[in-house]
Amino acid sequence: MQIVPPALERLVADLTRLPGIGRKTATRLALYILRRPAAEALGLAEDLATLHASIRMCGRCFAFSETDPCSICSDARRDDRLVCVVEEPGDLMAIEKTGVFRGVYHILHGVLSPMDGIGPEELKIKELYDRIKEQETAEILIATSSTVPGEATASFLMDQLRRFPVRVSRLACGIPMGMDIKYADEHTLARAIESRQNIDHI
Amino acid sequence: MQIVPPALERLVADLTRLPGIGRKTATRLALYILRRPAAEALGLAEDLATLHASIRMCGRCFAFSETDPCSICSDARRDDRLVCVVEEPGDLMAIEKTGVFRGVYHILHGVLSPMDGIGPEELKIKELYDRIKEQETAEILIATSSTVPGEATASFLMDQLRRFPVRVSRLACGIPMGMDIKYADEHTLARAIESRQNIDHI
Repeated sequence: MQIVPPALERLVADLTRLPGIGRKTATRLALYILRRPAAEALGLAEDLATLHASIRMCGRCFAFSETDPCSICSDARRDDRLVCVVEEPGDLMAIEKTGVFRGVYHILHGVLSPMDGIGPEELKIKELYDRIKEQETAEILIATSSTVPGEATASFLMDQLRRFPVRVSRLACGIPMGMDIKYADEHTLARAIESRQNIDHI
Repeated sequence: MQIVPPALERLVADLTRLPGIGRKTATRLALYILRRPAAEALGLAEDLATLHASIRMCGRCFAFSETDPCSICSDARRDDRLVCVVEEPGDLMAIEKTGVFRGVYHILHGVLSPMDGIGPEELKIKELYDRIKEQETAEILIATSSTVPGEATASFLMDQLRRFPVRVSRLACGIPMGMDIKYADEHTLARAIESRQNIDHI
């Protein structure tokens, strides 16, 4: 008994392949798209169809971009001696939104995960070393996530980068802004205590 | 400063228009699609582009279908004298999945919501009356959601259907299967007590 029309079922199956979208959500989205005017579905279809053709990777920082080098790498106002190493393009966007970072980026496109067969060769790590050798670099800010694989990747990089004459830094860990201390998890709180900062009284 | 390439930004904007998808989720999905092979994005684009052209509404029950009448309405094994009234096509799919309902459906395509300007004329309610008049109907099972607008729509229908010689029933409300009573909300528990069922001891 076919209760979902095949054309709808195909769309549901496509959407179910996206991360974090189960069959229920996919069905809800597909029915929503069907109820909206056809022009909206066609617009989304068009943007999906042109996505890969329009976007390449920046050959310097490996960000997704329509130009190579990307707009950040080619911006003369950015300090290219300060390189922020992130896991994914989404991390770059999150940092850019803060508006406080004036350096450039290097995107690893993943984290070390030996269980999944992802070693240093699968990430843009050799390219990071090449970059440090080829252009003047003062500081590498490691901004991997504070997850187990993110921390492992950071440790590996911190260890390897010792052989280069660059300053290596990491994002600070601690209590998130606006969080009540009693709701902070014990690992975060422990890290915040260990990394406590001195206050200079005048 | 353009940090998101325009082609990616267009896709993020499209996805943000879908229900329950905010900018963060849309960005995550768009980056995922970009990292996957272009063929997958093209497949999704194709299925979106053909969706509206392939699917129409069944002229009898108003379900989405590739045929008119739909596969349920044209199935001789279904009892067309028992009509289950639901809000949306997704509700039909949920009921079909149970496998216990052997009647046919009538999809209202919404709920009464005077605040949003949705009265009986905006829903397929007149079509329901026409159906009852034109074909032999023994029972109308009202299966709107147990939400405020769903209940209001059910009350309206129960009142209006009194003028037709049909039995009118509603889905039972009560404790969900597998739920611990102490976690049931007070309204559900109150309804379960009011609708308590007699047990016949042999």
